[in-house]
Amino acid sequence: MRNSRRGDVDPFIVMDVMEQARAAEAAGRHIIHMEVGQPGTGAPKTAIERLSADMAGDPLGYTVGLGLPELRARIAQHYHDWYDLELDPERVVITAGASGAFLLAFSALFDTGERVGLGAPCYPSYRQILKALDLVPVDMPTTLEARMQPVAGDVVAHDLAGLIVASPANPTGTMLDIDAMRALAEACEATGAALISDEIYHGLGYEGRDVSALEVTDEVYVINSFSKYFSMTGWRVGWMVVPQDHVRKVERLAQNMFICPSHASQRLALHAMDCAPDLDLNVDVYRANRALMLEELPKAGLDKFAPPDGAFYVYVDVSDYTDNSLNFCREVLDKAGVAITPGLDFDLIGGHKWVRLSYARSTEDIREGLERLKTFMDQLRGKS
Amino acid sequence: MRNSRRGDVDPFIVMDVMEQARAAEAAGRHIIHMEVGQPGTGAPKTAIERLSADMAGDPLGYTVGLGLPELRARIAQHYHDWYDLELDPERVVITAGASGAFLLAFSALFDTGERVGLGAPCYPSYRQILKALDLVPVDMPTTLEARMQPVAGDVVAHDLAGLIVASPANPTGTMLDIDAMRALAEACEATGAALISDEIYHGLGYEGRDVSALEVTDEVYVINSFSKYFSMTGWRVGWMVVPQDHVRKVERLAQNMFICPSHASQRLALHAMDCAPDLDLNVDVYRANRALMLEELPKAGLDKFAPPDGAFYVYVDVSDYTDNSLNFCREVLDKAGVAITPGLDFDLIGGHKWVRLSYARSTEDIREGLERLKTFMDQLRGKS
Repeated sequence: MRNSRRGDVDPFIVMDVMEQARAAEAAGRHIIHMEVGQPGTGAPKTAIERLSADMAGDPLGYTVGLGLPELRARIAQHYHDWYDLELDPERVVITAGASGAFLLAFSALFDTGERVGLGAPCYPSYRQILKALDLVPVDMPTTLEARMQPVAGDVVAHDLAGLIVASPANPTGTMLDIDAMRALAEACEATGAALISDEIYHGLGYEGRDVSALEVTDEVYVINSFSKYFSMTGWRVGWMVVPQDHVRKVERLAQNMFICPSHASQRLALHAMDCAPDLDLNVDVYRANRALMLEELPKAGLDKFAPPDGAFYVYVDVSDYTDNSLNFCREVLDKAGVAITPGLDFDLIGGHKWVRLSYARSTEDIREGLERLKTFMDQLRGKS
Repeated sequence: MRNSRRGDVDPFIVMDVMEQARAAEAAGRHIIHMEVGQPGTGAPKTAIERLSADMAGDPLGYTVGLGLPELRARIAQHYHDWYDLELDPERVVITAGASGAFLLAFSALFDTGERVGLGAPCYPSYRQILKALDLVPVDMPTTLEARMQPVAGDVVAHDLAGLIVASPANPTGTMLDIDAMRALAEACEATGAALISDEIYHGLGYEGRDVSALEVTDEVYVINSFSKYFSMTGWRVGWMVVPQDHVRKVERLAQNMFICPSHASQRLALHAMDCAPDLDLNVDVYRANRALMLEELPKAGLDKFAPPDGAFYVYVDVSDYTDNSLNFCREVLDKAGVAITPGLDFDLIGGHKWVRLSYARSTEDIREGLERLKTFMDQLRGKS
């Protein structure tokens, strides 16, 4: 049967490692998972109980395309509570995860062949979704001086129709402060490029505060998710804030491309927004895990990393030990029983010198993983 | 902010009528809903209870991109049970509703500017999703002789890269028998066009049996959903069967575009597949409703309709009474308190002469709606 070219997106390289990890576990080995980008926790217990009650009393049919009005209003309230912003609930679009939001945003903003800039390293699916829509992802190398984030000059230099930024970022965990965010927004406005701000790791910042692009401009698509802080990965629900004059266009696209996001997931999201105390306990775990990472990784000789401001990742430069991060990750899995992610998925050019370690799981797991890594690195460095 | 051209999809015309219906209800009027394309029932009670238990014991994080292996296997079993087909579970892809399946199928199969044929009238979102992907929807008029379905000659005549068929169809309810399906599959194979068979109304056939395109060819993308027979609209979960040599490509697209469908929805789908007796009770209701429609509509002078073989729609030619189906629907709502759908959403050319009536709700509602329609039509025809 015929094949499209647009559909020839790159495979996830980490899948190799994950499959190897699965096989090792199937063979009886104990593996520590520092490769996964999701919390080990589920949605808050109270929220789950409230959804169970909803399910017993309501058929949970389609919602309107933009999502439950009460959830849109609650999210507008969230911008007041977290960022001291007044936001019209009409501008909030509930989406099938951040993934659904990217599909909507790219469709609403860009035409075939247009160039969209990404600061490398970045979340790999940005590139692949752009390709599937016949758009052109433009990888822009970043520097440690700019906290591995794009800078205003990139927007002009690369002739962009759009720019995607993420803060805190995956895989680096680095954040943009308000001045850096403002500079990027101004560069986009000056050149007519659309700014898309991926804020799915908000709530998971440990140094400074999360800055929303909405604090510096209304001319932005802000994308967020219930997967990370709200610990609801598998429920596939997120949101997007769009400029007022884009709401109807996005609504028509959403109705046609998705009908609506999962009704149950929307209800659960609404309930989860009342569970801040529970969710903040998860953040305490990440904070403790991060402190462990920052203390122990250097002892293993892994002391070159991007500023780990937020999210639950440390992105480590392993160029002293390898120029093939995929092989390095395979070896760590094989010899240390720790699954970590090669940088190649995030950065096609520089990624062969980097690896990503996630600290989203329990502190016990992270402690054990770090001990195993230290033993492995000691051997590698000829220290044992 | 910048706008794309691809994102300028058509509005749903029916939304006007739905908004008018909502306003009428808000003003205290009682409206019978024959415009909605979804069951009034929810998922089977037992399935909901089992999902509640799952939710209490499992964080329900991401599944793999192609979906839960046990659900894929169960769906393969379903093809054995319903169609006497042996299907490799590897070919089954769980999707975020049929909507998610369309996005995946079109991305995997078609490149920018390619032409995809649709038998008019058809589900409007086919056209809009194609447009959003910068593909070219080609409306092909159908005839009553061919049960308002496309025919083999259309594939050649319209120079198509792909053909979408639906049986039972929305809005007509008409079905393709195995010879018609085979002829279309052969025409596609002969011309190199990709065949996409939308089978979301399977299980809701009242005349003859539902024929899956998989009974005549493996060179097809078959799309199905848990929304209709399984009565799970708001859960946004469906599936797709693809040729063996397309599985990996679709997997990579699915991982990037969706990560995975809702885990909870996948679990619920698995449980719902064990609830055939409950689900068949719903079908009994539709069958009774359909019989009422076929008996009562002609008495109201609405006797010209497409062969209503399946689904829960009757598509009625109202050209004796109007050449503006949108105005006609507004009048029916205003004077009779019955919400019905103008044909314009389904057929840009001929739709101004047709309306769609849904009989998915309770028999009591349908009976009341038909009485109101009859009174309205009697007045219109000067009979009272």
